[in-house]
Amino acid sequence: MAILVVGSVAFDSIETPFGRVDHCLGGAATHFSLAASYFTDVRVIAVVGEDFLPTHEAVMTARGIDTRGLERAPGLSFHWTGAYAGAMAEARTLGTDLNVFEKFDPKIPAAYVDTEYLFLANIDPALQARVRKQMPSVKMVCGDTMNYWIKDHAANLAVVLRELDVLLINDGEARMLSGETNPVLAARRVMEMGPKALVVKHGEYGATAYFSERMFPGFAPRPFRAPALPLAEVVDPTGAGDSFAGGFYGYLASQPVVTPAVFRRAMFYGGVMGSFAVERFGTERLQAVTWEEIEARFALFREISHLDDAV
Amino acid sequence: MAILVVGSVAFDSIETPFGRVDHCLGGAATHFSLAASYFTDVRVIAVVGEDFLPTHEAVMTARGIDTRGLERAPGLSFHWTGAYAGAMAEARTLGTDLNVFEKFDPKIPAAYVDTEYLFLANIDPALQARVRKQMPSVKMVCGDTMNYWIKDHAANLAVVLRELDVLLINDGEARMLSGETNPVLAARRVMEMGPKALVVKHGEYGATAYFSERMFPGFAPRPFRAPALPLAEVVDPTGAGDSFAGGFYGYLASQPVVTPAVFRRAMFYGGVMGSFAVERFGTERLQAVTWEEIEARFALFREISHLDDAV
Repeated sequence: MAILVVGSVAFDSIETPFGRVDHCLGGAATHFSLAASYFTDVRVIAVVGEDFLPTHEAVMTARGIDTRGLERAPGLSFHWTGAYAGAMAEARTLGTDLNVFEKFDPKIPAAYVDTEYLFLANIDPALQARVRKQMPSVKMVCGDTMNYWIKDHAANLAVVLRELDVLLINDGEARMLSGETNPVLAARRVMEMGPKALVVKHGEYGATAYFSERMFPGFAPRPFRAPALPLAEVVDPTGAGDSFAGGFYGYLASQPVVTPAVFRRAMFYGGVMGSFAVERFGTERLQAVTWEEIEARFALFREISHLDDAV
Repeated sequence: MAILVVGSVAFDSIETPFGRVDHCLGGAATHFSLAASYFTDVRVIAVVGEDFLPTHEAVMTARGIDTRGLERAPGLSFHWTGAYAGAMAEARTLGTDLNVFEKFDPKIPAAYVDTEYLFLANIDPALQARVRKQMPSVKMVCGDTMNYWIKDHAANLAVVLRELDVLLINDGEARMLSGETNPVLAARRVMEMGPKALVVKHGEYGATAYFSERMFPGFAPRPFRAPALPLAEVVDPTGAGDSFAGGFYGYLASQPVVTPAVFRRAMFYGGVMGSFAVERFGTERLQAVTWEEIEARFALFREISHLDDAV
């Protein structure tokens, strides 16, 4: 079934030990959409400026992404400038030009209202809540957030959390949101805030899913740990988390029923799409991966983590 | 087959958010021996002081550990004082009293010389090399080290590394030893220094094994990632790494041949024994775990990481 994603479609200027790019297509909704597009139909809601050209839109439409929800506004698109050094575990933000994003008021096109899977990418929780409210019959809601919203927009974020099936955040965000340093206690506390399940991303170490009894009525599965692929060359980590989310949610939405086994495979597909994303700058790799490559890498993730699969 | 371990048998004074203990039995060789004792015979070489009483030795002999290699010296045993706070990822060392360890000159009892599996726990690489030299017919050598030896005893450490089949270190040590921030490049560089395989411990995220072509002649398996168990209560992380090493190497030594599949299961048993170790202060938990508990936890590690095993 189709996914509706609301978030940023932006331009990124990025410097890593492997080089630099200026104003390449980026943004959470872009990375998410491209990754998810290999699994299911994707509809995107975002605002872009006059610098967003038909060639940029073509990157999304070439992957079958429905861009009717892309709103054009006078001015420039959201622009992020960042740099990575050393182990590239964290980006150093050098500039955040919100531009047209500052007055973004997401509107759901009529053709999108019946979308069953909603993804609230990392944007102002007030906007996330507004989108959620306009889709009363949605089947599943998954979302992301970040330290800035956790710290300074807690009340708005609390409203969004109450409506979430699955929250995807990283270790630091889980600690900050819960106030707990222990990862299991942090997960419990976060799920008490609303999410039925929590996926915590660990960067180069993979991700862990935690489940409340509300996720699969009747029982709460054990946590599940999906590996990340040890990569000799990480060219640009930008969008890795959003690509993980796209692979994860895209696979979930593509399946007739979300079972624990489907959820676990979705975690692996998340890691797979994240591992492709970082091999090139910007969206380059996720524009052109093949289904054969995805399945081969899924098998590789299995081989490096399963006792009996490898030779 | 039996394992000979050389390392510290010591007393630890530890403070964690769960309480404090004074002068409890500790040391790398102690944690390693107890963990490995569930899988195979263990012989230990260390030096202790006059404060090491028959009750302390009984902790080891009760697990069948051969303590004939425990040398008594006048004075006090090695004593470490440390504290953990917050997420307890790293110990803050408050005191290191080497005491009798300062003049430790390991001697191999005649009854130990034919031991086929040697573990060089984290001690001065000059001592590690001396022990290695006294056991010319050993079948497999596995070792540990730490930042202090990497930084200030590089030449001595280089001698030890050349003789190792498997080196077990953590992420920070792998970066420091290799000078590489990327984990895959770091592993390659470390294996060029001698070890045929490298196990990098990631604390709460598990561990990754990397293999050179020399480990299993004819081919180099992919890296393998073993999970750690998400624990709601980590009472005392002291000795977790040594317990991992004990479970890992104990299982390896217990098997007739070390194949890639055996190596992978050994990684899981390492995680299993590490997960027990941190549940109580000092050696308390590893003194009294049962084989049924070990097998149940192995199954749990499998369940939280394998796509098809869980319900």
